[in-house]
Amino acid sequence: VSPTAPSSSSESRAGGRGRLVLAEIAEQPVVAERLVTAAGSSDGELQRVARAVREAAPRMVLLTARGTSDHAALYAKYLVEVQLGLPAGLTSTSTLTVYGARPDLRGVLWVSVSQSGGSPDLVESTAAARRAGALTLAVTNNAASPLAQAAELHLDVLAGPELAVAATKSYTAQLLTLWLLVQAWRGASLQPAAALPELLATAVATDDVDAVAARYRFVDRLVLTGRGFSYPTAREAALKLMETSYLSAMAFSAADLMHGPLAMVDADRPVVVVVPEGPGGQALVPVLDALRDRGADVCAVAPGGLAPHATVRLALPSGMPEDLAPVVQIVPLQRLAAHMALARGLDPDSPRGLRKVTETR
Amino acid sequence: VSPTAPSSSSESRAGGRGRLVLAEIAEQPVVAERLVTAAGSSDGELQRVARAVREAAPRMVLLTARGTSDHAALYAKYLVEVQLGLPAGLTSTSTLTVYGARPDLRGVLWVSVSQSGGSPDLVESTAAARRAGALTLAVTNNAASPLAQAAELHLDVLAGPELAVAATKSYTAQLLTLWLLVQAWRGASLQPAAALPELLATAVATDDVDAVAARYRFVDRLVLTGRGFSYPTAREAALKLMETSYLSAMAFSAADLMHGPLAMVDADRPVVVVVPEGPGGQALVPVLDALRDRGADVCAVAPGGLAPHATVRLALPSGMPEDLAPVVQIVPLQRLAAHMALARGLDPDSPRGLRKVTETR
Repeated sequence: VSPTAPSSSSESRAGGRGRLVLAEIAEQPVVAERLVTAAGSSDGELQRVARAVREAAPRMVLLTARGTSDHAALYAKYLVEVQLGLPAGLTSTSTLTVYGARPDLRGVLWVSVSQSGGSPDLVESTAAARRAGALTLAVTNNAASPLAQAAELHLDVLAGPELAVAATKSYTAQLLTLWLLVQAWRGASLQPAAALPELLATAVATDDVDAVAARYRFVDRLVLTGRGFSYPTAREAALKLMETSYLSAMAFSAADLMHGPLAMVDADRPVVVVVPEGPGGQALVPVLDALRDRGADVCAVAPGGLAPHATVRLALPSGMPEDLAPVVQIVPLQRLAAHMALARGLDPDSPRGLRKVTETR
Repeated sequence: VSPTAPSSSSESRAGGRGRLVLAEIAEQPVVAERLVTAAGSSDGELQRVARAVREAAPRMVLLTARGTSDHAALYAKYLVEVQLGLPAGLTSTSTLTVYGARPDLRGVLWVSVSQSGGSPDLVESTAAARRAGALTLAVTNNAASPLAQAAELHLDVLAGPELAVAATKSYTAQLLTLWLLVQAWRGASLQPAAALPELLATAVATDDVDAVAARYRFVDRLVLTGRGFSYPTAREAALKLMETSYLSAMAFSAADLMHGPLAMVDADRPVVVVVPEGPGGQALVPVLDALRDRGADVCAVAPGGLAPHATVRLALPSGMPEDLAPVVQIVPLQRLAAHMALARGLDPDSPRGLRKVTETR
């Protein structure tokens, strides 16, 4: 698998704008192949970390992250709850850093996820968690980072330097790394991941993104939704659209959408629904019906055959296991965000007011 | 304390629209007084539940809820982490109901928060948590509800029948009930809550809401933010604005806002910042500076003296402990949501497409 060339007209029209983010989106098949290959080594980092975690036999998992990495952490929460049968929670960093809480974290696996490994609040809260008795694991794209140093264990997501402010390849690398960790931890096969490089290569080259970007050229408010494993995809896609096109892109789990925000949805506010094969996709059927009743303009990110009444589609391949599908699902949405920014004359490589490493305390 | 009459011009202009929600907002001082009085009884429900929880000595707390109640659960998460030193997490209901996960929940206190106690997914996941070994507590506004029956323990938030679709008095009643529970559990004084009925009576009667509602009459996109204890307030205010005025109201913790969404903020997208006295408010100072640098139109919900550069203000009383302030903070924002709906000719009592009890699975 090699990086796929930009496929569509708006990508070639852009005159250098979006060059970084489009190249990093296209790199994702190579990054996945790198991770799958490394995971196959029985004395590699993944297997060593999985052994250490298994021996510690944590009774729960706490995940901490910000921004894009927080969506990878949310994905890991579903994996831990569903596949390991352990309770899991996303931490509120401020309880440790702002309020100085000193909880008893013995028996807890504390997982900090960060592309750069540089945000001071993550470093500080991870160090505090370690002092409070947690087994700490950092998942970063930089083994030399302060966060990697602060934690007892480290997993490198092997995405290579990421230069665009909007994270793309580091996100799918985080998802895949966390999936591989959970499988190695519970002794499950890593084999399903072998198909990913090919599936990602297809996803970075499909030509249906342009039509959706064109349809939504003048949209400034958008709702995104998913359920279970596909909910982090909706959240991450919303963040990409906010960062690169300054849209009011609001993500809800489909169940939460029905508890209030549905009132906002009308024919002028498109809804992007991420529909996987499996129980999560089935749980979305009544939600798709409710959206249809409201006359919503629905964009389905789904394999063919699912969500048949959607107005427009971003096609996903069939046959992916639902727990692994998020690695591929986000790709057309990353591309949509970049294309929508380009269509608006914006440069998705350098959103106003943002830097690559955000320092919060 | 008795319910305060509607104070402002848009409330008296509305010709019946918003009658229910405005009456329920005005009832909040009475509800708080009812809860504080009941909590004073040493053989009351609160003390009995607190004793049962203390005896069980849970090693962690999992909270489950949807919509407005989810924001009360998020508030409780901060209380548990900061004041009890226990890890806490918000559950993803779908892992139990959609994916059939059967985690080991021995040693876990499972708290389900719901106004109606009627949503099937909460009932089902609470029953599953009980079978999985958790001590289960339902916090509802209906002691006869299926959720109250499904859990071993129950706390009634004593808000009385809530008729408006947009929850208001049940929210502050949930916050106060959860605060009282955590204090009784850890053996802390309940005395700070005695001031609430008076503070709430002031908050439902201040006249600064109209000016803000007028300023934002034609706004359709809004960002809300807070940090720590005030973050649930921002989330709940966003939901109220979405439900009643169909705004794209997006809430972020202030730390998350800096990791990407800040790019969206410009002079045309007002930012509501909830600034309490205490460490959470101090952590917002650099965020307020960043918003000022971007030329944002900032509405501060804050005691006088904090956030001095805000464009407009909704004043809060001084001297509230930060952990209890959210009970009062939300009131001017509930009123703002109702007034903005009225100013747009909408009826905040009956948002389109919503019913009072949402059934999700």
